[in-house]
Amino acid sequence: MSEENKKEEKGKKFTELRQDLVTGDWVVIAANRARRPEEFIVHDDCEVDVSDDAQKKCFFCYPEETGQEKDVLIYTDAKNDWTLRVFPNKYPAFTRGDEISHQEEGPYFMMEGVGYHELVVTRDHKKSIALLDKEAVAEVLDAYQDRYIDLMNKKSVNYIEIFHNHKKSAGASIPHPHSQLVAIPVISPYIKSELDGAEEYHKMNRHCAYCAVAEWERENGKRVVFENDKFIAFCPFASRAAFEIWIMPKKHNPYFERMSTEDKLEAAEALQVSLAKIYESLGNPAYNFYLHTAPCDGKDYPHFHWHIEILPRTALWAGFELSTGIEISTIEPEAAAEFLRNAKV
Amino acid sequence: MSEENKKEEKGKKFTELRQDLVTGDWVVIAANRARRPEEFIVHDDCEVDVSDDAQKKCFFCYPEETGQEKDVLIYTDAKNDWTLRVFPNKYPAFTRGDEISHQEEGPYFMMEGVGYHELVVTRDHKKSIALLDKEAVAEVLDAYQDRYIDLMNKKSVNYIEIFHNHKKSAGASIPHPHSQLVAIPVISPYIKSELDGAEEYHKMNRHCAYCAVAEWERENGKRVVFENDKFIAFCPFASRAAFEIWIMPKKHNPYFERMSTEDKLEAAEALQVSLAKIYESLGNPAYNFYLHTAPCDGKDYPHFHWHIEILPRTALWAGFELSTGIEISTIEPEAAAEFLRNAKV
Repeated sequence: MSEENKKEEKGKKFTELRQDLVTGDWVVIAANRARRPEEFIVHDDCEVDVSDDAQKKCFFCYPEETGQEKDVLIYTDAKNDWTLRVFPNKYPAFTRGDEISHQEEGPYFMMEGVGYHELVVTRDHKKSIALLDKEAVAEVLDAYQDRYIDLMNKKSVNYIEIFHNHKKSAGASIPHPHSQLVAIPVISPYIKSELDGAEEYHKMNRHCAYCAVAEWERENGKRVVFENDKFIAFCPFASRAAFEIWIMPKKHNPYFERMSTEDKLEAAEALQVSLAKIYESLGNPAYNFYLHTAPCDGKDYPHFHWHIEILPRTALWAGFELSTGIEISTIEPEAAAEFLRNAKV
Repeated sequence: MSEENKKEEKGKKFTELRQDLVTGDWVVIAANRARRPEEFIVHDDCEVDVSDDAQKKCFFCYPEETGQEKDVLIYTDAKNDWTLRVFPNKYPAFTRGDEISHQEEGPYFMMEGVGYHELVVTRDHKKSIALLDKEAVAEVLDAYQDRYIDLMNKKSVNYIEIFHNHKKSAGASIPHPHSQLVAIPVISPYIKSELDGAEEYHKMNRHCAYCAVAEWERENGKRVVFENDKFIAFCPFASRAAFEIWIMPKKHNPYFERMSTEDKLEAAEALQVSLAKIYESLGNPAYNFYLHTAPCDGKDYPHFHWHIEILPRTALWAGFELSTGIEISTIEPEAAAEFLRNAKV
């Protein structure tokens, strides 16, 4: 082999198939198609209209004037001015109600889509979570927890999904920053897959799968983005999206609703810093984040471990992903983590 | 209750949770947010550049001039001019090779992404499958089958995914119509879920789940889009996307590669008519379609049933879908099917 060929061989990057430790799902890290982190920076920031004109008509700046339903939760500051409110969604994906009615059609099975669909709204029209201070983010987590606890024992509710869409291309139809809470009668396939995987891992290893991940990431360090006393933020080994980040409590806890007030401040810090690093280093891209916690269906899930997943919108699902459920990522999670770790916020 | 209220009550549409018969996954049919079929029509058709200038630089119109790799399959007409060619992808998501090498990192597991990634290219730059005649579409299915049979017994290949991205927003980076074939060492989570569900259904009912679906849809009729002697095209009961269509052989057959030449012409007709109905009635929207067939990992899958799924790009996955895997559709599959059934092609 000539020197030149050897060099080429050494520099040749192979595609990798990486397996998620919990679900067993695969992702492709297409290192041969890889881009440098800088190539992911978003240069088009015109999609969110934060002009004063837009704000004048904003549903969430002026909820009474624009006919929002009565809020189900309101937080106020020392001057008695509101800082955060939770509204029932005027166009809910699930209809309010407690009666689950099953129906059949031939071989098929269906039920009425009863549940709750609420919007968690912070006051400032122009400040996404990345730009809030730690205390304001802790207030958001407070609201998530308050509403979770209020809804978790309702008859029709077996799982509560809390998520946040940032920018239009991530599905945010209203530019004013807001999160959504959807309380539903079924346990979603993704949560089911995590629950089953965590159970299986525990049976084999007598140890929580997520604890094993958090411990390895801390020890190993190369995928860590941020860490404080109680939480670790890292790019997962089998990242599905470029610059994906998971935020996990270091101490085992299946249930988000049991997070202490002290822990909440640290969770808020980890979430805010992670989003700020994405915002600053990638030019404010669209993203989704969501919370995965044990179901509230009356059963115990001692081997689950609640966490937050942040998915920047850096890629498009095409035929391969839609058909297989295997995502192709064009940056190594280690390179993404290094880039985010070094980002100044 | 006043007359007015009664009317309102009667007209009130509830959200439905519908379950996929095979996988057990749920979808939400948000009838309360429903739109009329006409509201889904795409009015912006500027995204595909089919100008003569673009064609001059086209990789697939001029494969030799633009440095494509040597084709692995070529079909020609009576004048010996090519009509269809299959090229290895210059930028494969999987690296060619037969050796599967496993690696570990701490608690994690990975393997080298070996496999095959090929592009099936029809001649006409400006004619998508919807615009081809039945015989030309049958030639495309022929090429799928030829390449499938050639790769299915390779050492590194356990599953072969065949898919087609139409338009840029569905992931087609090259405007010239082409399908992709990806032969991989792992069985994808989506196929696994269908295999497990079909197996379970057979155990309970001593009948193929997909046969049960095809029989019910034919009998019931309201979700049928098109039918010929051998194939049925219908909007599935638990559609994940608006105007989703499944194409299924009426006769039980787990293995796409065993479809007869006679059946292939009818499959081609069902695929072409379905795509033409989407093209004509919805203003040429972006879509993906893909083929699900039994794995080629040396095992038998007698209870699977091969089929094609077409997913028009009518919605955006946001936080809820990404987090739960439950999709929210804003048109009833029955209304979508009626609209497509009536579309003239």
